[in-house]
Amino acid sequence: MTTRVACCQIPLHVGDTTGNLTTATAAIEEAARDGAQIVVLPELASSGYVFADRAELESLAETRDGPAITAWANLAEAFNLTIVAGFPEAAGDKVYNSAAVVDPSGLRGVYRKAHLWDTENRVFDRADDLPLVLDTDHGRLGVMVCYDVEFPEWVRAVALQGADLLCAPVNWPLLPRPVGERPTEQVRALAGAGMNRMATAVCDRAGTERGQDWIGGSVIVDADGYPLAIADYGTPGRITADVDLAESRIKQFNDNNDVHGDRRTDLYRRVGLLD
Amino acid sequence: MTTRVACCQIPLHVGDTTGNLTTATAAIEEAARDGAQIVVLPELASSGYVFADRAELESLAETRDGPAITAWANLAEAFNLTIVAGFPEAAGDKVYNSAAVVDPSGLRGVYRKAHLWDTENRVFDRADDLPLVLDTDHGRLGVMVCYDVEFPEWVRAVALQGADLLCAPVNWPLLPRPVGERPTEQVRALAGAGMNRMATAVCDRAGTERGQDWIGGSVIVDADGYPLAIADYGTPGRITADVDLAESRIKQFNDNNDVHGDRRTDLYRRVGLLD
Repeated sequence: MTTRVACCQIPLHVGDTTGNLTTATAAIEEAARDGAQIVVLPELASSGYVFADRAELESLAETRDGPAITAWANLAEAFNLTIVAGFPEAAGDKVYNSAAVVDPSGLRGVYRKAHLWDTENRVFDRADDLPLVLDTDHGRLGVMVCYDVEFPEWVRAVALQGADLLCAPVNWPLLPRPVGERPTEQVRALAGAGMNRMATAVCDRAGTERGQDWIGGSVIVDADGYPLAIADYGTPGRITADVDLAESRIKQFNDNNDVHGDRRTDLYRRVGLLD
Repeated sequence: MTTRVACCQIPLHVGDTTGNLTTATAAIEEAARDGAQIVVLPELASSGYVFADRAELESLAETRDGPAITAWANLAEAFNLTIVAGFPEAAGDKVYNSAAVVDPSGLRGVYRKAHLWDTENRVFDRADDLPLVLDTDHGRLGVMVCYDVEFPEWVRAVALQGADLLCAPVNWPLLPRPVGERPTEQVRALAGAGMNRMATAVCDRAGTERGQDWIGGSVIVDADGYPLAIADYGTPGRITADVDLAESRIKQFNDNNDVHGDRRTDLYRRVGLLD
């Protein structure tokens, strides 16, 4: 049995919450018509990313019962979907770079990004959340946001909690890379999937914003660490894969090895890994 | 300033210690003539890999003053090299899957593999060594062996100790992979280099042995996580790259991010990563 997973690599425009929601709604409806069961949207899918300052971010942030989450939850109910999407979360005087999980029953959980990228440090509050892991109709989902995925400790933590599918909304800024090479961010996601035998769905974005280009490197990875679907770099579009999430529950991959059982935690403690 | 690093992807034949040493010697001499300063050989370069049983392994194991290490040390002195190479290490009634570092001053250190692969569990003793990190004329080297590299905790530990270059002798068995994809083992090495900003040199092997084929996927990676040199899969040969090891000492990569400084060890402890 497989689960149809879609990543909607949509263009976003900072400040245009109405336009972004229209774009996301159309993308979700198209994914649903194509049979998607789990839909991942980019990081900060409601607001866009390149905020001029904290004031602009605050003006675009919303609470957990705000318009974007409400709209996504309505779509989840209408099309029987589980949707993972990023939004700037207003919480008292704090604003977090968050991701929500909604399904036909409504809002299931919110994760606040723990590892902030570059200028996010100036506008967002840094969260102290642990990674979000929750059970859905389509298995156990782990959720983290963008730069989080580049910390193997964080990916490992989600995998150790039994996530069948890591869902990661991202906004990967376009940086130089050698011709013909996949972006290192994507390589890290592939490696994290393979080293944990955990299927992974990364949804990147498209659309230049205030001079910032994006990789547009959405990818769906199987538990062996190989891509099932990769977006055309930089191009708006949807990638879809039928993922056998049961494979993520098989951590033993030969008679003598198990990606988690083989960890030498006795030695990791001695070497001062968490000092 | 760069350091010339060579990985000698040589064919090996289990049991033929004389032939393997002849092959390794020729490869090291060629690398030296090409200006190499650091030379990495495969895992178990003295003995070959596919042991019939513990008795055969024991018959091929040697102590730290044995013939292979002595020969490699002599070559290091003759050509002013630092050499990292794998060998089966006899230590009392134990046999470890070890890697030695030799330089013009002689044997500098030995690392014993902590994560054993598949049938190695039946013939080798599992070590409790911490990763080897040592200073050489060419910077600080970290050393681990094959499957070790697939544990991001282990790679992180070496990087946190300031290794400029991770040297990893490997014997990567050939497993199925999708057409056009790099082997996941190689992807994991690329990711580890990038996520730690630590240059990495992986030396694989060639030559079918008792029906076992090998990837032959030697790779030298820069601190950005991109390959400087990749071997032709499955083919004997040497890859060489001029590596700027000073890049590995720059963990901060933009105004606000640092691959190690951004780690949320406060949260990693809470999430029970080492339980």
